[in-house]
Amino acid sequence: MVIFGFGFFLAFLKRYEFSSTGFNLLIVVLGVQCSMLIDLIFHLPYKNVLDRVAEATVSVTAVVISAGTVLGKTNPVQLILMTVVEMIVFRTSRWINSTFLQVPGKISVMHAPLFGAYFGLAISSRFSEPSPRSEKNASTPKSDLLSMLGTLFLWVFWPSFNSILVANHNERAICNTYFTLAASTVTAFALSALTTKDGRFRMTHIRSAALAGGVAVAYTAQSIKYPWIAMILGQLASVITVLGSYCLQRCLNPAFKIHDASGVHFTFGLPSVLGAFVQEVLFIVNNGTNSPRLVYAVVVHIAAFCLTISVALIVGFITGSILSLKLFKTIPVSKYFDDQFYWEVSFNVKLNVWECM
Amino acid sequence: MVIFGFGFFLAFLKRYEFSSTGFNLLIVVLGVQCSMLIDLIFHLPYKNVLDRVAEATVSVTAVVISAGTVLGKTNPVQLILMTVVEMIVFRTSRWINSTFLQVPGKISVMHAPLFGAYFGLAISSRFSEPSPRSEKNASTPKSDLLSMLGTLFLWVFWPSFNSILVANHNERAICNTYFTLAASTVTAFALSALTTKDGRFRMTHIRSAALAGGVAVAYTAQSIKYPWIAMILGQLASVITVLGSYCLQRCLNPAFKIHDASGVHFTFGLPSVLGAFVQEVLFIVNNGTNSPRLVYAVVVHIAAFCLTISVALIVGFITGSILSLKLFKTIPVSKYFDDQFYWEVSFNVKLNVWECM
Amino acid sequence: MVIFGFGFFLAFLKRYEFSSTGFNLLIVVLGVQCSMLIDLIFHLPYKNVLDRVAEATVSVTAVVISAGTVLGKTNPVQLILMTVVEMIVFRTSRWINSTFLQVPGKISVMHAPLFGAYFGLAISSRFSEPSPRSEKNASTPKSDLLSMLGTLFLWVFWPSFNSILVANHNERAICNTYFTLAASTVTAFALSALTTKDGRFRMTHIRSAALAGGVAVAYTAQSIKYPWIAMILGQLASVITVLGSYCLQRCLNPAFKIHDASGVHFTFGLPSVLGAFVQEVLFIVNNGTNSPRLVYAVVVHIAAFCLTISVALIVGFITGSILSLKLFKTIPVSKYFDDQFYWEVSFNVKLNVWECM
Repeated sequence: MVIFGFGFFLAFLKRYEFSSTGFNLLIVVLGVQCSMLIDLIFHLPYKNVLDRVAEATVSVTAVVISAGTVLGKTNPVQLILMTVVEMIVFRTSRWINSTFLQVPGKISVMHAPLFGAYFGLAISSRFSEPSPRSEKNASTPKSDLLSMLGTLFLWVFWPSFNSILVANHNERAICNTYFTLAASTVTAFALSALTTKDGRFRMTHIRSAALAGGVAVAYTAQSIKYPWIAMILGQLASVITVLGSYCLQRCLNPAFKIHDASGVHFTFGLPSVLGAFVQEVLFIVNNGTNSPRLVYAVVVHIAAFCLTISVALIVGFITGSILSLKLFKTIPVSKYFDDQFYWEVSFNVKLNVWECM
Repeated sequence: MVIFGFGFFLAFLKRYEFSSTGFNLLIVVLGVQCSMLIDLIFHLPYKNVLDRVAEATVSVTAVVISAGTVLGKTNPVQLILMTVVEMIVFRTSRWINSTFLQVPGKISVMHAPLFGAYFGLAISSRFSEPSPRSEKNASTPKSDLLSMLGTLFLWVFWPSFNSILVANHNERAICNTYFTLAASTVTAFALSALTTKDGRFRMTHIRSAALAGGVAVAYTAQSIKYPWIAMILGQLASVITVLGSYCLQRCLNPAFKIHDASGVHFTFGLPSVLGAFVQEVLFIVNNGTNSPRLVYAVVVHIAAFCLTISVALIVGFITGSILSLKLFKTIPVSKYFDDQFYWEVSFNVKLNVWECM
Repeated sequence: MVIFGFGFFLAFLKRYEFSSTGFNLLIVVLGVQCSMLIDLIFHLPYKNVLDRVAEATVSVTAVVISAGTVLGKTNPVQLILMTVVEMIVFRTSRWINSTFLQVPGKISVMHAPLFGAYFGLAISSRFSEPSPRSEKNASTPKSDLLSMLGTLFLWVFWPSFNSILVANHNERAICNTYFTLAASTVTAFALSALTTKDGRFRMTHIRSAALAGGVAVAYTAQSIKYPWIAMILGQLASVITVLGSYCLQRCLNPAFKIHDASGVHFTFGLPSVLGAFVQEVLFIVNNGTNSPRLVYAVVVHIAAFCLTISVALIVGFITGSILSLKLFKTIPVSKYFDDQFYWEVSFNVKLNVWECM
């Protein structure tokens, strides 16, 4: 049941209020229907409908994460197109994984944050950047607070999210996710105070790093045997996120012309990569080192990971190129991050409200 | 457990902040206690207490919906009176249904949105309208956002709500409600863009139409066999809501002097009527056409529906007339929609806050 | 699962926005880890991990409640120290209870609100009061609304909270808590209208008194046999809270130099005392009066209660004295209740925002 709530909880992760909540609902609903339709067309085997809806919801997080990177820069038609394309491509990528690499469906669906983050980044590299003088994409204390509220919701429901598709070992997955989240949160506060001037906390750090643990542990939630491993993983995820937020914004993003307003890259992208890496390490440690069957399993895992990420980047780049065509009435840069462009806002009230926000 | 949350989630559906959250809590709590008391007095048979609380909570949605129509126009004493009267009348109406028409209690409780909407509309026709120049009943982006938050909560918990009283077929009820909600949400976005000038979205449409699906499917959640039926129902509900919001506000409401600030009529009233109609159609389709027993069952359903709606309208009208007597210190029209009338708001802060909102 | 959410739901109980949400998350996470660590070190017997996490979360409410009293007056280092000290002391107090007084662990954990409230009050008596002319610790309609949202969350999840540690009688604990909460909410509205001038409601009363019932019933949730006992308890709790809020703020707080910004004393402290008292009364009524075994049991209960409260007061006072040392860079009184002191708030936006709030 809780998984149904996920769509909503993500809705508040982002900062642009009417559009981000409204369009997020649209994306989630559309994505789930799209996923069900694909399942229906190809008669993919599943026992019951609830299970299918749960898997569709996990898949749709990929789209929601991608939408975070282009938030405020796309119109609804572009978003809908992106949703449909991404659901189909992610489903195809999972189908390749399960057919050629024998990765079970319930594991390949865990690639959703990874796929979503890099698909979104590839798309956003094709959209022009907002002018740096623009005030509209700055956060306000009020929007930060709403965003914190959304983060707390996600935080609280992440253990259920990571365990939803696990048949047995359910309790272990919940506890491991919980420990990882706890460790990454504490580390986030510490690192945020250490890296900013005069030891203040930065909201973005807390928000991103608190969730990073949950993303990183997604691959290994069922297989970690001791709480302290989960805790170390959480700390690593937090470190990689906070450091990543500095490095990426200064070096990588300008180089590739990526404008990643919501910090999707370091919140979901990097921790996923870390998670996949840790999964291999733990797999090797748990199963000994020198059997040919083990080497084969590791190679398969790595292949599935590389396949997912490269499909995401390539198709994302192509989709971004198509979406940024004049055909789709792309928003002029000056109209980025503006609710008024899509929503009827009563005018007399609006004026002094926007002043205040 | 989730059903306990419903009282809260409705709290944010409405726009007037202190009063609507505070009084909603009061109404829900009072209504549940009132319902328990009635059950206790008449020794109505039930297995356990939790079941009884769940049913009381479903009943109380009728009162909350009614309160939506007179929101901002009644004082607490009037609201409390309305709560008590409505709980008693709804209980009586259900008792008539179960005694004379043999409708089981768990089905008759599904009339709650229908009863609540028309009871509330009948009451609100007896209250004077706010002056059209008044600024206080306009929504602001901030209040719209809070209301959207409330809608999302309701959206997420509606599947549990529709399935709470169903003993078996639980999973099917959840899935059907989910599909209906999804279809009505997508249709809501499409219709909102089509019907407004220059293709913008209107928040009221999204909010109302997204929930309309859940209301419409309440009667048939357990009996729909294919997802596509649920989806078509959701689309119909959405269409009826958006078209209804235009027609009602232009034609019907002025004619009957109804001021329906929260859009209760087209959010809960019309979809309920649609739901009851679809229930009959599906019932006939599923069970063949020409058996006398079937005709009898359909007649009973229609009788129960007509009984509920006419009891709601008649008693609502009488209650409205009594409540609008001078005796109860009705609020002057100029004080409508004003939190300050009931809540201590610290003055020095208040001034510049209301300016901003 | 729901219990995981508790940390979040408390987060919004308080009024200072960035700091209260952020630091609350930090406290909860740190407290749970600390509690797990203590359990690990002393090899305390428990069947499974989830159970342990649930108990740790209940314990951590003590810290969150304590933090409410010193909110806005402590820096993060002081809060972290307070969390660690309080978790250790509360664990020790429970260990004494279970070793010397044979109170089972699942009952002694119910002392958490009591312990937290008086520990916090003892600490806050060692911090200097904010200047009465300060505007920063006043609430605004917006912050009151957020706080109401938090209260509603707590309200809705309190029944689960009170029943989480009860193995059997689960349903009874939920229903009793629900009835108590309902009764205390209705009484809160009535009393608030009666005690304020011109019959308006005061948000603080509604908030505190609505929760007071849940706190008071914690000890007896499983043993109350009739709903009406729960309802009377709820009414008593509400009365004690509203009257307490007047008496304490005028008489007791100035005398002991306590500045209790969040009303922790009358929201959690007094109802806990009431709950413990009612527990004894019910225990005596249920088990007859004149057996020596009964007298012994009552004496043990009272001893456990006195022990908990005196440990809380004494250690709280000592901790407060240590924390208010210059060593910890205490915040100057003029900087109390100021988010900017700890959070990077973007400056150009901030100015006109704070004006509005």
